[in-house]
Parts: sequence; C-alpha cells; structure tokens
Amino acid sequence: MMATFNPVTPELLEKLRNVVGDKYVKTDEDYLTAYQTDEEGNSIYFRKPEVVVFPGSTEEVAAIVKLANEYLVPLTPRSAGSGVACGAIPIYHGIVVELERMNKILKFDADNMYATCQTGVLTGDLQAEARKHNLLYAGDPSSAESCQIGGNVANNAGGNKAVKYGTTRHQIYSLKVVTPTGDIVTLGARLQKCSTGLCLEQLLAGSEGILGIITEVTVKLRPLPPYSFNMVCVFKSDEEAFALPNRILKAGIDPTSIEFMDNEALQLTCKFLDMKMPHVDDGCDYVIVTVESFNEDDSDRKMEQLCDLAEANGSIDEFEADARIWKLRKQFAEAARSVDKMFQTEDFVVPLDKIPDITKQLPELRRKYDLYCVTVAHIGDGNIHVLPLNNKGLSPEEWFNKIKAFHHDLFPRVYALGGKMSGEHGIGFKKLEEFEACTPEGELKMIRAIKKALDPNDIMNPGKLVNVG
Amino acid sequence: MMATFNPVTPELLEKLRNVVGDKYVKTDEDYLTAYQTDEEGNSIYFRKPEVVVFPGSTEEVAAIVKLANEYLVPLTPRSAGSGVACGAIPIYHGIVVELERMNKILKFDADNMYATCQTGVLTGDLQAEARKHNLLYAGDPSSAESCQIGGNVANNAGGNKAVKYGTTRHQIYSLKVVTPTGDIVTLGARLQKCSTGLCLEQLLAGSEGILGIITEVTVKLRPLPPYSFNMVCVFKSDEEAFALPNRILKAGIDPTSIEFMDNEALQLTCKFLDMKMPHVDDGCDYVIVTVESFNEDDSDRKMEQLCDLAEANGSIDEFEADARIWKLRKQFAEAARSVDKMFQTEDFVVPLDKIPDITKQLPELRRKYDLYCVTVAHIGDGNIHVLPLNNKGLSPEEWFNKIKAFHHDLFPRVYALGGKMSGEHGIGFKKLEEFEACTPEGELKMIRAIKKALDPNDIMNPGKLVNVG
Repeated sequence: MMATFNPVTPELLEKLRNVVGDKYVKTDEDYLTAYQTDEEGNSIYFRKPEVVVFPGSTEEVAAIVKLANEYLVPLTPRSAGSGVACGAIPIYHGIVVELERMNKILKFDADNMYATCQTGVLTGDLQAEARKHNLLYAGDPSSAESCQIGGNVANNAGGNKAVKYGTTRHQIYSLKVVTPTGDIVTLGARLQKCSTGLCLEQLLAGSEGILGIITEVTVKLRPLPPYSFNMVCVFKSDEEAFALPNRILKAGIDPTSIEFMDNEALQLTCKFLDMKMPHVDDGCDYVIVTVESFNEDDSDRKMEQLCDLAEANGSIDEFEADARIWKLRKQFAEAARSVDKMFQTEDFVVPLDKIPDITKQLPELRRKYDLYCVTVAHIGDGNIHVLPLNNKGLSPEEWFNKIKAFHHDLFPRVYALGGKMSGEHGIGFKKLEEFEACTPEGELKMIRAIKKALDPNDIMNPGKLVNVG
Repeated sequence: MMATFNPVTPELLEKLRNVVGDKYVKTDEDYLTAYQTDEEGNSIYFRKPEVVVFPGSTEEVAAIVKLANEYLVPLTPRSAGSGVACGAIPIYHGIVVELERMNKILKFDADNMYATCQTGVLTGDLQAEARKHNLLYAGDPSSAESCQIGGNVANNAGGNKAVKYGTTRHQIYSLKVVTPTGDIVTLGARLQKCSTGLCLEQLLAGSEGILGIITEVTVKLRPLPPYSFNMVCVFKSDEEAFALPNRILKAGIDPTSIEFMDNEALQLTCKFLDMKMPHVDDGCDYVIVTVESFNEDDSDRKMEQLCDLAEANGSIDEFEADARIWKLRKQFAEAARSVDKMFQTEDFVVPLDKIPDITKQLPELRRKYDLYCVTVAHIGDGNIHVLPLNNKGLSPEEWFNKIKAFHHDLFPRVYALGGKMSGEHGIGFKKLEEFEACTPEGELKMIRAIKKALDPNDIMNPGKLVNVG
C-alpha cells in the first residue's frame, strides 16, 4: 500500500484549472461530499476527494494524468458512479476525474454495425440509438438507464443478455485509453479477428480503472432479432429450477437470457411495486427465459421446445411474460434498497453445474450469520446475486463486520467449486482484501507486476482490485 | 535486443537431463537441424537450437524455465511447429521446449460441455472427440490435422468457423501457464462471466509464447448443430463477391463461415488436385458459405434466403458444395507449396467494408514488385490471404528482399484502412520489424513494459513479436 501521496496543493489546483477551465474544477464542500461514495450505502467506506475535475476531452484527461504523476496525487476515474464495489470512491482522496461531460456518440455506422462512444454515454442511450436503426447493442446491465459505457467496460459489466452475447468485454472493438503515465493509446481495432500484438483491449476491459482511463469505446452492433419471447417457468424447488439452464443450452435453443428470482425476492419486489404475480403467494420461484429469433416459425418452435423442457424438469406452470416481469427483475435492487441503503449485493459466479452445490450451503450461512437474504441470479451464466438486507437497523460498523465475516466464510466455498467472487460487479475497494486472500500468489504476482509496469507511481485508482505492495 | 544470453553448457545439459530424463534431452545434429525452422521454408530465417528438450509435465516445464533464468539461456516453446511467422524458430539458439509429449485430453465432460487438454493435443483430435459426443469444438484452423491446441491459443489461431464462433481466444475458459520466471499459474476459470481481477487468460492468448508457456487449456464445447449446408456462390467480379458478407450478416443468417477463393487460387488448386470444378475455366471466383442449424426447416429457409441474396448481389450460379470444396480450400496451402517451398502467406485483416479498398490496390503492388499472387480469404471476417509464390526460383535472399519491400509498401496501406498485419498467423520473428514500424509508440511502450515486468531476463521466446529494447 502506497502511503506517500501528496495533498492537492493550490498550485496543482491552478494547473488543473488551466487544463479544464475554472468551472470544471470543484472544491466546494457539497461536491466533495457528493463524490465521497458511488452506489455504496455504508458510510464506513466513504472518502472525500480533495478536488473533482470534469474534463471535456481525451487530451484534457491526459493532461490531468500527467499532472497527477508530476505531483504524486492519486486519481480516481468515475463514470456514472453506479458501481457497487466502491470502485469510484477516492480511497486516498486526491482527484476524482468525473467523465460525465464526455457523453457523445461520436459515430454511429448502421451499415457497418458499429458505434464509437465517448466514455460517458449512457448505456441506455446507446441501446435506444441502436434500436432506432434496427440494431442491437447487446451490453445490458440492469442499471442500463443510469450507467455509462466507459464504466461498463472498466468493470466488464454483465447483465441480462450475457448468456447469448457475453459480457461488455465481448461487445468491444477498440478503446481509446489514457495510460497511467498520460499517453493516449488506441487499443484493439474494428476487426473480427486479430493476431497482431498483445490483446491489450481485453486487459483493460475489467481492469477497474487501475491501468488507465477509458475515454472512448468502439462497440459492435448486431442485427436486431425481430421476434422474441419471454417465458416464465414456475418452480416449487430451487434444485429443479437450477437444472434447467444446462438443458436449454444443450438443446440449441440459444437463449438470450435465463434469469432466476427466488420466492423471497419475488415477494419483496411485488410488495415494493404493489403488484400481484401468479404463484408468488404459493412460495414458488421464477425462471425467466428470453429467446430472440429472426423468424416467427423458429420462435414458435423454440417456445414449444422450451415449455416441454421446463415441464420435463418439474416446472408447474409456464406463462409468457409481459413488461411486468422485466419491471420486477429490474426494480429488484430498488426494492432491496427500500429495506435499508446498506444492503449488500453478492455477485459470485460458479460453473453452471455447481449452482446447486453453492446454493444449498446458503441456508446454513444465513443462520450462522443471522442474515435475511433474497436471491436473484443470472442462472444461465452461473452468476448468483445473494442480497443480505440490513433489516434490523445495524450500524455501519456492525453491518460491515457482519458482512466481512460472511464473506470470509462464503468466498472460499465459491472458489472450492471453481468459482470467483465477482461475475459482473468487480473487486473495487470493497472486496480487495478477500480478492487477495482467495487468489493464488502466482496470479497476484502477475497482476502486481503489470500494474507496477504500467503505473510506476501507483496514482491510477490506487487501493482498488489489488495493492501493489 | 538482448545480446547477453549465455551458451548452453554441459552443466546446464546435465541439469536438464535431471529434470526430464536423458532420452528427452537431444543435442544430436539431426535434431538440431530439424528444429531450426517451423513451417517456414526460407532458409534465411533458419536458426539451430543448442538443445531440444521434451518435457512430460507442467512441473518439468517449470523446472526448465527456472534453469533458463538461472543460466540466462533463451527458451523457445514449440507446439506443432505449424506456424508461418517463424514463431517457433530459436532466433537466439538456446533451448527449444518441444511440448509434443503433453498430448492427452485430461478431462472431457460432455454433460457440462468442456474439455481440459494438455498443450500438445492435436486440434483435429479434440474436434473428433467432441463430434463423438455430439458436441462441437469451434476452433478450426485450416491446419487442424497437424496443429496443436497450445499453439492455437498462443497464436490465437483463426480458421474456418471464426465468423460465427470467433477465434481460438473465444474458445477458452482457462489456461495453465508456466510464467517466464517459472511459476505455475491457472488463469481464467470455467465461468461464463467474470469480473474478478485482470483478464490474464486473454492477455496470454495470442501472446506468441513471449509471456509464458501454455501447458494446459480448458476449452468450451458447444452443442453440435445437426443440420448444415455449404453453398458455393460464383462471381465474375471480386467486388460483387466482397459485398456479400455484410448482407448475409445483417440478414441474421448467422453463417459459420464465408470463404473466398480467387480464380488463380482455384486454378492452382484444381490443377494440384487434378480436379475439375464448375466455372473455374471461365475465370470466376468462389464464395463458399457455411450455415449450421438445429432445425431442418430453419436450414432450408436460410439456404433460400442466401441464394436470393447472392443472386441480388451478382452471383451467376449457386450450388451446394460437396467434400471437394473443403478439400480445395484446405489443400490450397499445399498447392502453393508445390510451386515453391518459399511461398509467403500474408494474412492481413481489415474491416469488412474495407476489403474492396485494399484488394483493388493489389494489382498495382503485384506489378510493382513483379509478384505472382493467388488469393484466398476468410471474407466473413476481413482476413485476406494473399500468397506471393516464388515461381521464378529466386534465391532465399532475393526472395526475402522482395517480400520485405512488398511488406513495407503493403502494411501501411492496410493500417490506413484500420486494419492490422495479422489476422491469425501472428507476428513471430518474421514480421517483428514491420510490427514495430506500424504500431504507435504508446502501444509498443505498454507491450514492452508488460514483457519486461513478467520476463525480467527476457528469456521467454526472445526476438518474437517485439524487441524489449
């Protein structure tokens, strides 16, 4: 851990103002307070920056990074601040680089199916622009209406279409990046295949801002399938529900998404939204399967095939989902937040066949740590969101300690099954200690060597993902 | 460029024998001669190793790497030696690490659709094992019958199914790797999504052996589509042929492969195989489209749709391809070799919409450098194989100089269109100079920094991809 950062001086502030203009350098207390956290609700993690800067271009970002190296001041890049791993919290104070002004779609080429976006483009805006042209941008985090494309890449955001299309890293052609030493580089290219040099764009994707600041993203677009259906399959037992994805995948149905909501999650969200949904009062779980197609007959055939598979697997009812279902799924986090802002979102990921092995250990863990939990999961890709809710009004410190103990117990079980602690949220500051504890030394050595090589002063989002030691 | 490597001493040989056993350490002249090249036919590139070792396990590889560091002797990992970029030629002599003994499929899990292979498993054997279980291993280099899975990953091999399934990097879950300092690490995991740490498995994939030796690969398998067709569309003009892929992709036909053979390539291969094929004598080109499907109706519908698109695009005939077509496509390299062993395979890659922009410059280049060229291309992914054939019996040095001048002229044109010099063959030693000339300084700086950080002694396949300076 680096302890030798310098404070932000008036001289540095003056130089920052020269780079971005007076009005884009904020040191007012209300700004510093607003930027002390991202989506995190537990005040124990909050840290105030010394200054928030709002660059308007890649060149301005590069100038800021050069100043940070010159003055040995830490930088925390921030996209929408919609992360849940404390990735945009300025742990060592210093400078927050807020990228929201860089919010233009610079090029949208419908004929050749790609778009170049500045880092602060709202993911939902990109999705909407693509739909206008009968195209699909397949990155689809549940927070699409509030998150931004640069943050999606930095975090390798997952979401609702990952079974068919992969995560954000699979949507990118190239990235414009300001390196930790202030160089501007373009990594990757608008190519379908490439064996030229190292695959640095994939190293940067998911690197959580520790290897550079992403300022532009060129994404793949795809033809928008004109037909789709969302089918809810209703299960009385989790185990039956969890066996369904593998059968769907092996049958060649090629689903876009397979989502799971346990009964407690359904009850909580129905109550929050004041909705009534079938079988929820009978204690059932939902598996929601989305299938897209370019042909109506193909779509109909797959729907039949899916219902047959679900029934053979123990589903007691199947019904076509309307907009309510996606509202239910997407509003679930808000429902959790309504219980207490300090709720915790786990997002561990295991091989599909190991889902039952981990979920059957959860009741014991819940009892052991006296936790009220609800579960939703992207079960088509093994990514489980267990959400302990602070429904007893514990203090920030009590809640922090309870979650810490729970993590120490949970994560080694996940890793023993071949899983990892984060499928889509990242490590950030929140899980750094657990990440270092669960990751083999050889891998940590590689990560630290790369971080030190690219960021010799450790000024780029320090205290996130890994400590360089 | 590092010039301070030590020679292989009798003491080091003795220690190598202690690691792998006497019979797996070869210093006989016939071995050294056999390992002076890979698939490269121009003797100007040949370099003899001082010793060839045949490790039988990851642990033995790690012990060899530690010895190489201790004695400061360069290592050249070698899989099948089927590469065409001089990637397995021991430029600085030293030790060739031949991995052919590590050729077992360690685990084949048909139910959960993955396999763990030792690095020396023949790609064709993995494909065949998958088919036995009604599964597909989607990596499919044209050299599948002779290349090995570890080399495919190290090179990010492309091939014939990349349009639908991507290149080798898209087939991998995880890699077991011996790092340049001799640690054994497992990178990646059998997960559908992951935001835990850096994506090191993708950094290693395509790194051409400069960042470590891949000893095991866990690959994704997919359900094998039971229906497929191969349609040959016949074009009188290249330009019409090149416009077809984008239309096929936008129509949602989801082709597995779109291949192109120009008339000269068809003539050469038909002559070599003593085959007669339709329209070849009329000067036509072939576009060969493969479509796979899980449903017969769907397959039939796509075939009709494809023929309509091809005709609307200027195709003068379409016929269903039989085995002869793939024989033609796969034997093409052998046909080229029959002209002269020193033929050159370009494999540059451009965005699909830029294919005509680069190919229309080729006649001028051919005239300028007095080259006889044939062209085949994976035009579904923009990867063009232009093959200058040494049909005038030039000497190794004359041929080397001619190709060098051709490259200096060709590659900047490719890069000006947003392309890269290699889509699937890699840089190796052969294109290192061009790679360093065409790649922006900021990117080279990152590559060199990572290489130095992970391989401080520069002993791991030195002189390939990049010089650390």
